[in-house]
Amino acid sequence: MNKSVVTIYKIGGGIIDDAAELSKFLELLASTAGLKILVHGGGKGASTMMRELGLTPQLINGRRVTDAATLDIVTMFYAGKTNKQVVAELQRFGVNALGLSGADGNVIRGVKRPVKNIDYGYVGDLEPASVNAGLLQQLLLAGLLPVLCPIIHDGQGQLLNTNADTIASAVAVALAGAYTVKLHYCFEKNGVLRDVADEQSVIPQIDAASYADLKQQEIIADGMLPKLENAFAALNQGVSEVIIGHARNIGNSLHTVLCLK
Amino acid sequence: MNKSVVTIYKIGGGIIDDAAELSKFLELLASTAGLKILVHGGGKGASTMMRELGLTPQLINGRRVTDAATLDIVTMFYAGKTNKQVVAELQRFGVNALGLSGADGNVIRGVKRPVKNIDYGYVGDLEPASVNAGLLQQLLLAGLLPVLCPIIHDGQGQLLNTNADTIASAVAVALAGAYTVKLHYCFEKNGVLRDVADEQSVIPQIDAASYADLKQQEIIADGMLPKLENAFAALNQGVSEVIIGHARNIGNSLHTVLCLK
Repeated sequence: MNKSVVTIYKIGGGIIDDAAELSKFLELLASTAGLKILVHGGGKGASTMMRELGLTPQLINGRRVTDAATLDIVTMFYAGKTNKQVVAELQRFGVNALGLSGADGNVIRGVKRPVKNIDYGYVGDLEPASVNAGLLQQLLLAGLLPVLCPIIHDGQGQLLNTNADTIASAVAVALAGAYTVKLHYCFEKNGVLRDVADEQSVIPQIDAASYADLKQQEIIADGMLPKLENAFAALNQGVSEVIIGHARNIGNSLHTVLCLK
Repeated sequence: MNKSVVTIYKIGGGIIDDAAELSKFLELLASTAGLKILVHGGGKGASTMMRELGLTPQLINGRRVTDAATLDIVTMFYAGKTNKQVVAELQRFGVNALGLSGADGNVIRGVKRPVKNIDYGYVGDLEPASVNAGLLQQLLLAGLLPVLCPIIHDGQGQLLNTNADTIASAVAVALAGAYTVKLHYCFEKNGVLRDVADEQSVIPQIDAASYADLKQQEIIADGMLPKLENAFAALNQGVSEVIIGHARNIGNSLHTVLCLK
């Protein structure tokens, strides 16, 4: 029997901080067919509110150092404001969305990141095995679109701040047993570009062999490299394809498709 | 065939503002048998944060006037911070809780309160027919404990602030077709008291006839009257019993049970 297809969409700060763009994306998402899960990141709102409250946001290597006060704010923002606005907006477009933190239904459990050189505070690490795939399957079967925010829990009552890219990838891998999984990363460019200065130079498809070539020619480097390394890691764990493109193009074919071969 | 029993617990600000009391209550809740739904109110945190941000909380007849900035804050507090802390804490006690605003799974839809003498802003009114009883039933069947916060939506993308007592009562009535429903209001007293100065004077049971007597003798008056009026309204719409007592006594029989006869 063929497995059903589920697409995991991930949206980040760039679109969350722009209400009009976000609304357009959600309307487009509502019009696409098939089973879906949406994972959203944070955006700048939490940092703005922290500053208004006299707190100083601290980031190391792009990761937020999360003390107790920061955890409260990001939980309010990600699991409260952003998650509920996205869900309400999807309901407006006729989609029965249901928002979840990792604590809800124990859908994603993690561990507080061990302190090595840096103490990130209440930041969680997770693996595909931390995902309650059975519950996500039940929700999809009930006709719901799960909307995941980047707050998880440790099972001992502690909420933990985490990264939406990591959640999207872990959920995709966790569902690969039961579904044919597509993992769709939305970001600010049209895809993986042959020439970073030219938005029209999207590489339509990259497989493991051409990826090795592109790396050797240094066409893929810098910021794109970790994204693609993570994408191929997901493919190697059973995800069928990873799609990278702009949020406004989720309904068409302007994007880069990554697959093993 | 006998219907299964589901108990709707409602907790308010008094307990939410006291982390130790809240944790004790949730541990007790985890140890009680049977199907359950938890509805929580707001607490003082949202007003405190508003003041820290230079906003002025405004209440009329105990109801919060909710402009756009206030709606953001209460959504963050109720659907974000409080809801996720309660869920994470229940997970710690081995209960598979799942937090919901009314927008999630379209579980409670409402309408923005029409402006008459007072414009309450983004405040929602709801009825038992606004409750998606089918989804709550599916979640209960999946072994989950739904945790509802007092934020609902209008189906058109607008979140609305509402009242946890009203949600608890509407959910109880909506489930009365499929279940034998007990509606358990937790508050700061041990129950309905014969003498407000004496916590030991709890009236164990009140039915429609004795309620009429107690009103006539003015033993029930002031703050208790609207609570009991709402309780009897729920009983008249199919709820089996309404229980009023202190959060710390949910596991024992120190409380007042209201029923029609």
